[in-house]
Amino acid sequence: MTYLVLLRHGQSVANRDNVYTGWSDVPLTEQGKKEAQQAGKLILQTQIQFSAVHTSLLKRAIVTANIVMDQIHQNWLPVHKAWRLNERHYGALRGQNKDETRKTYGTHQVALWRRSFKAVPPLLKETESDRRYMELGDIEPRGESLEMAYHRLLPYWTDHIAPQLLAGKNQLIVAHGSTLRALIKYLEQISDEGIDGVEVANGEPIVYQFDEQLNIISKEVLV
Amino acid sequence: MTYLVLLRHGQSVANRDNVYTGWSDVPLTEQGKKEAQQAGKLILQTQIQFSAVHTSLLKRAIVTANIVMDQIHQNWLPVHKAWRLNERHYGALRGQNKDETRKTYGTHQVALWRRSFKAVPPLLKETESDRRYMELGDIEPRGESLEMAYHRLLPYWTDHIAPQLLAGKNQLIVAHGSTLRALIKYLEQISDEGIDGVEVANGEPIVYQFDEQLNIISKEVLV
Repeated sequence: MTYLVLLRHGQSVANRDNVYTGWSDVPLTEQGKKEAQQAGKLILQTQIQFSAVHTSLLKRAIVTANIVMDQIHQNWLPVHKAWRLNERHYGALRGQNKDETRKTYGTHQVALWRRSFKAVPPLLKETESDRRYMELGDIEPRGESLEMAYHRLLPYWTDHIAPQLLAGKNQLIVAHGSTLRALIKYLEQISDEGIDGVEVANGEPIVYQFDEQLNIISKEVLV
Repeated sequence: MTYLVLLRHGQSVANRDNVYTGWSDVPLTEQGKKEAQQAGKLILQTQIQFSAVHTSLLKRAIVTANIVMDQIHQNWLPVHKAWRLNERHYGALRGQNKDETRKTYGTHQVALWRRSFKAVPPLLKETESDRRYMELGDIEPRGESLEMAYHRLLPYWTDHIAPQLLAGKNQLIVAHGSTLRALIKYLEQISDEGIDGVEVANGEPIVYQFDEQLNIISKEVLV
């Protein structure tokens, strides 16, 4: 029996201000830190002993992971930080208020961008000039549909998560709303349409239990 | 020109209580967290862009590293956590008050244990029953002289720090009083007797600048 715990970071400044974030590296709010602590307490109660933690290159996820590891007294775990776990890249919508974009682009278009699997937001003209992404070269996104985020996420699952779970090693992933939705879509084989209805709340751990062939035995959301 | 920054963790509960710690996994005090923040601000002023952070398996160093990475806006750096960077193992002295041990063992013996390169503290009868050290098997220490800590530390330098510095990649090491003294002994070729006089203060970053052959060009302690 192996456990995978998924956790969306606590509230960020951008969540609070109702702004598209994506790859912007915004900090947690004080409430977000409290949500992370509470998530840690909930995970502590499960008594799961992890072998590794996986998170994105964005501080709202990294700081959430650190707070959780402290709460569960497993600070010493290896932490793998990967751009493939980054939030979906919101392209030119980044930094824009979600209500404002409805006025600019219309409610229907915004609903498509936010909810549909395939809608691509307006792309940035340039990639980030950020050294953490330098090595990506041409594959660095300038905006992503959920589908695009799904496809760049899956290699991380295949290469770094699934083999560990198959070896009986419990894993914790601390990531973002869209990348966790994409992973859940894959794990639970949810259709392109069905994923519209799936939400992942800040700071509520999702615990999957797998059998030895990596079939899901149970799923529980801790609150 | 490549930079190596060494940092001893902020004040721990055991520092405050004047107790031998070694591999006990004690947390930072509030003062220790402030020292870590201040260290981060000092490192930020250097504008050094790191490629990786190295720390021990002990939370007082890990949490210090996390606080520093947040202060310097480089949360996304890979962090390598290694038992070889752990504090010197204080054997059966662990948990004992430093003044009390003087009464029990005499001032001279305690001075030898604390300061000399070769004095070995009374060993523990058993190794830790801690899963983070399970894979060490027979090499897990039950007490160490500074010399023993020196010899288990050096492979980490050789395998994981020096090659990165030679590749021009700046490195940050957040560790402990004795392991940093051991590393400084190696870097500055200090004699077994000379290392007695070397102190590393909590939260004061030491910045080494190296040339392309890994010769030290400069050393500065930031305060």
